[in-house]
Amino acid sequence: MEIMRVVDELVCSRRVPGLLSYSLRVLRNEQGALAVATDPVGVPPGKWVFTVSGSTARLAMPDRTTITDLTICGIIDRWDEDEGE
Amino acid sequence: MEIMRVVDELVCSRRVPGLLSYSLRVLRNEQGALAVATDPVGVPPGKWVFTVSGSTARLAMPDRTTITDLTICGIIDRWDEDEGE
Amino acid sequence: MEIMRVVDELVCSRRVPGLLSYSLRVLRNEQGALAVATDPVGVPPGKWVFTVSGSTARLAMPDRTTITDLTICGIIDRWDEDEGE
Amino acid sequence: MEIMRVVDELVCSRRVPGLLSYSLRVLRNEQGALAVATDPVGVPPGKWVFTVSGSTARLAMPDRTTITDLTICGIIDRWDEDEGE
Amino acid sequence: MEIMRVVDELVCSRRVPGLLSYSLRVLRNEQGALAVATDPVGVPPGKWVFTVSGSTARLAMPDRTTITDLTICGIIDRWDEDEGE
Repeated sequence: MEIMRVVDELVCSRRVPGLLSYSLRVLRNEQGALAVATDPVGVPPGKWVFTVSGSTARLAMPDRTTITDLTICGIIDRWDEDEGE
Repeated sequence: MEIMRVVDELVCSRRVPGLLSYSLRVLRNEQGALAVATDPVGVPPGKWVFTVSGSTARLAMPDRTTITDLTICGIIDRWDEDEGE
Repeated sequence: MEIMRVVDELVCSRRVPGLLSYSLRVLRNEQGALAVATDPVGVPPGKWVFTVSGSTARLAMPDRTTITDLTICGIIDRWDEDEGE
Repeated sequence: MEIMRVVDELVCSRRVPGLLSYSLRVLRNEQGALAVATDPVGVPPGKWVFTVSGSTARLAMPDRTTITDLTICGIIDRWDEDEGE
Repeated sequence: MEIMRVVDELVCSRRVPGLLSYSLRVLRNEQGALAVATDPVGVPPGKWVFTVSGSTARLAMPDRTTITDLTICGIIDRWDEDEGE
């Protein structure tokens, strides 16, 4: 799993079926790269989370047919950004 | 999922079976690397999209036996390139 | 499999179901990047381990429905950090 | 899928079963990294191709039990190397 | 598949079940990064090999339930290190 920070919500009105009702988050990892994840937890911007990728990202969603390759798994209680660096 | 920009259509007349009738797009990610994706949405060049990779890329296609490891999932409504940087 | 060093335990009280009772470890690889792994072996911080990723990470857990994409597979008996460099 | 150029044939007389009769190609991607792919299309050195990776690489082979994680999917009709840069 | 060189055997007496009797090799790729692979071929240190990753790594083992995400597939007959560079 990877440690990432929630940046924003992704606004995207035109999607493939199977992503229609899920909220999408824009995340940034420690190296500064952006990614988009499905969020079954409900995380506000600014929080540090850890994410699961690949086929397991589908299994982490309440509906396992969701089209996703990155899902937020949990909010990290304490994370000092400097700890990561 | 990854945030990428559509650069062009990929012209490729000689393919393996199972890719025969799908349109292919050349995309560029934020780091500048190119990739090829199947496009079930129909996206013109210049648009910012997000893509799903791995085995889930097949599930995002109308025909789930399509030979692909990267599929365009949706067009991002507003994306400021500077926001990514 | 990848060679990584255990840095710390990850404290995370709010998780998706399916990760509820497993201990999570923060690891650092040779390039200095951090990752989070499930730990069925029980490894204290400071130890060098090797990890398995992708769908196989689930199969390495006692309960194969665990939501994980990185699992600690074993403790390396002797590992000279310089050997890696 | 990734855009790569065929460099050479890979000569390898000692292999695991399941790779015995397939031709293997050495490819180079745009960043200059090398990779080995199975080739169901029959591509001569120098050509630009696009490749599929992961579990889908097996599905792109005529025999879907082939041991491969990278398969050549098609020859790109026109590819200006500068276009990629 | 990736081109790598066998560096050493990995000594690891404490492992998860399912890896108990297989020999593990430490490999180095062209960029200098280390990885650990299962070895069904029997390769001495110093040899250039190619490896398969992901779920296919399990299928390349005689016992397909082996916990691995990287397996040595074959020894390359001739490999000039400069050819890779």
